[in-house]
Amino acid sequence: MSILLDTDGPETVRLTAVEAHGLGTDALKRIGFPDDEAKIIMDQLVDNALCGYKFAGLPRLLAIAKDKKTTKKREPIRIVKETPLSALIDGGNNVGYITAYRAAEIAIRKAKTTGFASVGVHNSYYSGRNAYYAEMIAREGLVTMHVACGHLKVLPPGGTKAALGTNPICFAFPTSKEPFVFDMGTASLMWGEVLLYSHIGQQLEPGIAFDAEGNATQDAKAVFNGGGVVPFGGHKGFGLSFSVQTLGLLAGSFLAHGKVQDYGFLFWVLNPEIMLPAGDFQERLDELIEKVKATPRRPGVDGIRLPSERAFKERARRREEGILVDKLVVESIRSIGIREG
Amino acid sequence: MSILLDTDGPETVRLTAVEAHGLGTDALKRIGFPDDEAKIIMDQLVDNALCGYKFAGLPRLLAIAKDKKTTKKREPIRIVKETPLSALIDGGNNVGYITAYRAAEIAIRKAKTTGFASVGVHNSYYSGRNAYYAEMIAREGLVTMHVACGHLKVLPPGGTKAALGTNPICFAFPTSKEPFVFDMGTASLMWGEVLLYSHIGQQLEPGIAFDAEGNATQDAKAVFNGGGVVPFGGHKGFGLSFSVQTLGLLAGSFLAHGKVQDYGFLFWVLNPEIMLPAGDFQERLDELIEKVKATPRRPGVDGIRLPSERAFKERARRREEGILVDKLVVESIRSIGIREG
Repeated sequence: MSILLDTDGPETVRLTAVEAHGLGTDALKRIGFPDDEAKIIMDQLVDNALCGYKFAGLPRLLAIAKDKKTTKKREPIRIVKETPLSALIDGGNNVGYITAYRAAEIAIRKAKTTGFASVGVHNSYYSGRNAYYAEMIAREGLVTMHVACGHLKVLPPGGTKAALGTNPICFAFPTSKEPFVFDMGTASLMWGEVLLYSHIGQQLEPGIAFDAEGNATQDAKAVFNGGGVVPFGGHKGFGLSFSVQTLGLLAGSFLAHGKVQDYGFLFWVLNPEIMLPAGDFQERLDELIEKVKATPRRPGVDGIRLPSERAFKERARRREEGILVDKLVVESIRSIGIREG
Repeated sequence: MSILLDTDGPETVRLTAVEAHGLGTDALKRIGFPDDEAKIIMDQLVDNALCGYKFAGLPRLLAIAKDKKTTKKREPIRIVKETPLSALIDGGNNVGYITAYRAAEIAIRKAKTTGFASVGVHNSYYSGRNAYYAEMIAREGLVTMHVACGHLKVLPPGGTKAALGTNPICFAFPTSKEPFVFDMGTASLMWGEVLLYSHIGQQLEPGIAFDAEGNATQDAKAVFNGGGVVPFGGHKGFGLSFSVQTLGLLAGSFLAHGKVQDYGFLFWVLNPEIMLPAGDFQERLDELIEKVKATPRRPGVDGIRLPSERAFKERARRREEGILVDKLVVESIRSIGIREG
């Protein structure tokens, strides 16, 4: 499957970032997204693809176009509760790529003014890649913790039904060079992996996934159809996942449909200058990165790799070389809003 | 070893909470702690013991008394940088039980006034049990993320030397009943466990620990003497550990001795009322807890256990029954400040 490989072949199409952006923008406009929103979505999807997250790249357009929520009525995003250092945002059933982006913008503005900001979004879906917003915040010289909770996909230990989302948690920090970004799901698998394995008929690892009846299974399709996965790292991952779901309540997750297990995106953003003299934090983080990377290594280990390093390198490379997309995916994107229209 | 067991026997002493408190307070006063500080330390150590964290209970007095930092000059804690929603605290080489407690008090006061607060402490050591401060904050109706970084005990993947602390991260949230508290180390073992296993000559699990030369070992003593352990959960745990170490920079960790890998305790505290109408958050968290606990269970599983439930139950039980302490520990505590004095 070319979707797994990064080599040219009869099943793949090589696109420049600009071409990929145009392809997706046209598709989004055909299904009713205005120019500015299509741009926000495609800026991220192309960046995800450049960073090497194939499933979070162009294939996401198909998921967005197919999702029932996309065809439902959207209202303009609006702030429903606000203080100088906080905002609670009703996402108006707009896709998370837009709502989380707007929330990050608001959090940046507030943190720059007040020093510390908490901004949450509900009534939305698909938050996208958390690291994208977190990096955007860190590039403004700010520190962030960003969490998102959503669809129920994760079983509590001992349970037979999913009760939590895949609930990623992300931290990002400015340095004097590239930001340091760490983004992790609290599930043992990304849901995109379950979907991918289900598509290509590959088995999942044993012991991590359950079907809709709560029976252990390695069949990705059975997991995808109403099943779920365990948290990563046992009880620690479960506690972290539950904490993220709880932080989602602060974003008003329950306000959308009256359910406490629903979508919520939360940003906590801090200006390091309220804690330390300007520039000190960035400089010291440079030094910490240097020190940890200089740790003596085991034979055969060619370097201590920090989170986000690989993604940033990949991005630089693919900006030159372009991205490879499954031909089938490209064709499907070209028919978005045409077959249905 | 009675330290591992919770049954009476010739090697254990059963103490009421009041007796344990008195025993420790006397010892601390003998080595120069004033009344109010001895009380703050013992309130926590007794609570740790009540909650079932034996190693974080009375035995900690021995570690505090023995630590070189305890005999070094202490200065009064002082705020070195402050805004209405933040404080950077120089701990004056006071033990973390005191400095983190004072920081939590300041964070509570600031979050109640402004809605959101960031408070950090450096120039301190031994932060104690993070969940203790976090629970204290949640009992004031506030939400917190609390992290601590310290002594280098954790190896980055591929490394042969410790480059990070055990770096716990803790979240606590108010409900309308008991707070929900989740506290996890980002190391594969608590350092207290390494110490305990080293004392009783028990082997560690394979694959998680290294000696001072960076060789894999199961010998707890070799690990304790200059070795380290791997992060929990592989690269995810490493990323989380690195993020906690970075948050420690915001607490001014590097200011104490000019090193970026040093002690730092950070509190982020939010009043949920800046996000949601008063009481909504607590009510919805009650509901989320109820829903997750009501998840259908696998045969033989008698309940979905949430973080902090066990500790709170243990505390209620031991308040009635008292705590069991190793006789040797009690004798050693009785001789604190006497043998040396």
